[in-house]
Amino acid sequence: MDKIIMEHGSGGRATGELIRDIFESQFNSDVLSEMEDAAVVPGSGTIAMTTDSFVVTPLEFPGGDIGRLCICGTVNDLCMRGAVPKYITCGFILEEGADVALLRRLVKSMAETAEEAGVKIVAGDTKVIEGNGGIYINTAGVGFIPDGVDIKAKNATVGDAIIVSGNVGDHHATVLSQRMGIKNNIKSDNAPLQDMVGNLVKAKMPVHVLRDVTRGGLGTVLKELALSSNTCFEIEQDKLPVDPQVESFCGLLGLDPLYMGNEGKMVAIVPEECANECVDIIKSSKYGQDACIIGYVNEPGDDSEKGSLILKTRIGGRRFIDILQGEGLPRIC
Amino acid sequence: MDKIIMEHGSGGRATGELIRDIFESQFNSDVLSEMEDAAVVPGSGTIAMTTDSFVVTPLEFPGGDIGRLCICGTVNDLCMRGAVPKYITCGFILEEGADVALLRRLVKSMAETAEEAGVKIVAGDTKVIEGNGGIYINTAGVGFIPDGVDIKAKNATVGDAIIVSGNVGDHHATVLSQRMGIKNNIKSDNAPLQDMVGNLVKAKMPVHVLRDVTRGGLGTVLKELALSSNTCFEIEQDKLPVDPQVESFCGLLGLDPLYMGNEGKMVAIVPEECANECVDIIKSSKYGQDACIIGYVNEPGDDSEKGSLILKTRIGGRRFIDILQGEGLPRIC
Repeated sequence: MDKIIMEHGSGGRATGELIRDIFESQFNSDVLSEMEDAAVVPGSGTIAMTTDSFVVTPLEFPGGDIGRLCICGTVNDLCMRGAVPKYITCGFILEEGADVALLRRLVKSMAETAEEAGVKIVAGDTKVIEGNGGIYINTAGVGFIPDGVDIKAKNATVGDAIIVSGNVGDHHATVLSQRMGIKNNIKSDNAPLQDMVGNLVKAKMPVHVLRDVTRGGLGTVLKELALSSNTCFEIEQDKLPVDPQVESFCGLLGLDPLYMGNEGKMVAIVPEECANECVDIIKSSKYGQDACIIGYVNEPGDDSEKGSLILKTRIGGRRFIDILQGEGLPRIC
Repeated sequence: MDKIIMEHGSGGRATGELIRDIFESQFNSDVLSEMEDAAVVPGSGTIAMTTDSFVVTPLEFPGGDIGRLCICGTVNDLCMRGAVPKYITCGFILEEGADVALLRRLVKSMAETAEEAGVKIVAGDTKVIEGNGGIYINTAGVGFIPDGVDIKAKNATVGDAIIVSGNVGDHHATVLSQRMGIKNNIKSDNAPLQDMVGNLVKAKMPVHVLRDVTRGGLGTVLKELALSSNTCFEIEQDKLPVDPQVESFCGLLGLDPLYMGNEGKMVAIVPEECANECVDIIKSSKYGQDACIIGYVNEPGDDSEKGSLILKTRIGGRRFIDILQGEGLPRIC
């Protein structure tokens, strides 16, 4: 077997072989190998649930692949509520002709990332459709919320500091470079953030909001958070962490890093008095070494500033930033 | 907006509009409308988790559509472990050009089916890919397992009765009729089974195994269960409930109802002494009126009968049934 054929979606013998040969051997979970309709696992008093589908193209790129991405995406969404990610389900939609060796690499990458993120893959499903060898993966996840943790967009409060956990735009620039055939050393930042968030929670930092910076980029994410809390977010262009290579790449193509997606970065909004401590915790966590404070949550000066995001530019201007309009780059995740 | 365009997958303004206009208005869930990265909901001591992707074509068919199907499929997988289905996440992969009016109908159907099944849609995701207007939906679900419930394939025990909850093959025959342009009155049986399973659990029936009859059909399902328990399942051809119209349809095309998928039927394996009571409970539940006992779990006569499924034919023969080989009918779910 070197290509996926329609029979792999039959629910019969070929499906069974695909599952045993490719998925079970890698995911290696006692729950999964029971081959039941649903996994039964220990629960918790308060749970977080999320889902994401992944359609990125190309399927493999410098720094990662759709397999690593689909675990990170779901793990990070759970983390953004302060949850400890626990269980992942994965649904594969395979186009006829999909390369089996490639699928094996992606599944291995999923397994390794799940291990890194401390989550168990407990249930899966495979469907086959006509097409040209494309691979789409949906992951859904469940995490447990520790007692007393309440992290959500509405909690952003005037006086809070806005922290970003590292350089923005890397993943987007990587996918775009691959798509355009541009050679450079830019790598995707796709990474699971359970260590970073877990450290903040363990240190009992009174974190108000966490949000990972994905499609739409930092600009869209911050504008949405400002709208949720009806406050005025002000960030400084000078403080935005951008990798120099990504910055030149953006300059060349006329792109704004504010609207470029990441897959391993988050925004943390925390009371100012503990902001430096939070930055230190993030910096000492995996994937957080470039964390910094980029701005503050302010009282809106007037009605026009309610729910607004303002960028203080390098030359001293104040620019209102809206959420992404139009299409940034399709299929970055 | 009458067609989906790539911009709807941007994560920016168009995605927000799509979510508010089409999904939020129908799913109408306070949790979903928080627009957080993950939903936070009350948990339970033991949970069941499952996932399924749906790629059925056509998207609408007599008796149902992909929207009803994707809720039923996930609800039923949870039920098959005796769980009370609680929360659903849904991931949409939309091909460019997908019809927005159709999408609205499907989302409405999902919302209605979720209401019927007693589940809440708590998280979602939308991606857009190039293509020809196709719509794929992944659902994942969480259910709560009541104390003392332990339903799984390995529990099938010699002496157990094998019950099927109604006519087999309806969904498969419906999709095939549509695909071939054959006019008849066959309708899909796609239905949520939480009422049926809930009634068995409430009546404290000592159910050993439940399994819904989907891809691969009853033959594949029973053979897999026989293998899991290493017993010998014997069923009688004469007792298999098949709708007369589906039976003629199968006769005409040379199809075997044993390998035709359903989306609202289940197998229940229960101790013989309570089998009639179980049948009565299923018959009095929604979607269970045609339930009957079709066979028994027997001691294997010799090694060749270990993990086997034997069909006693109408003319008195005994035929070993294997799991589906080759492709039954692609994309029935």
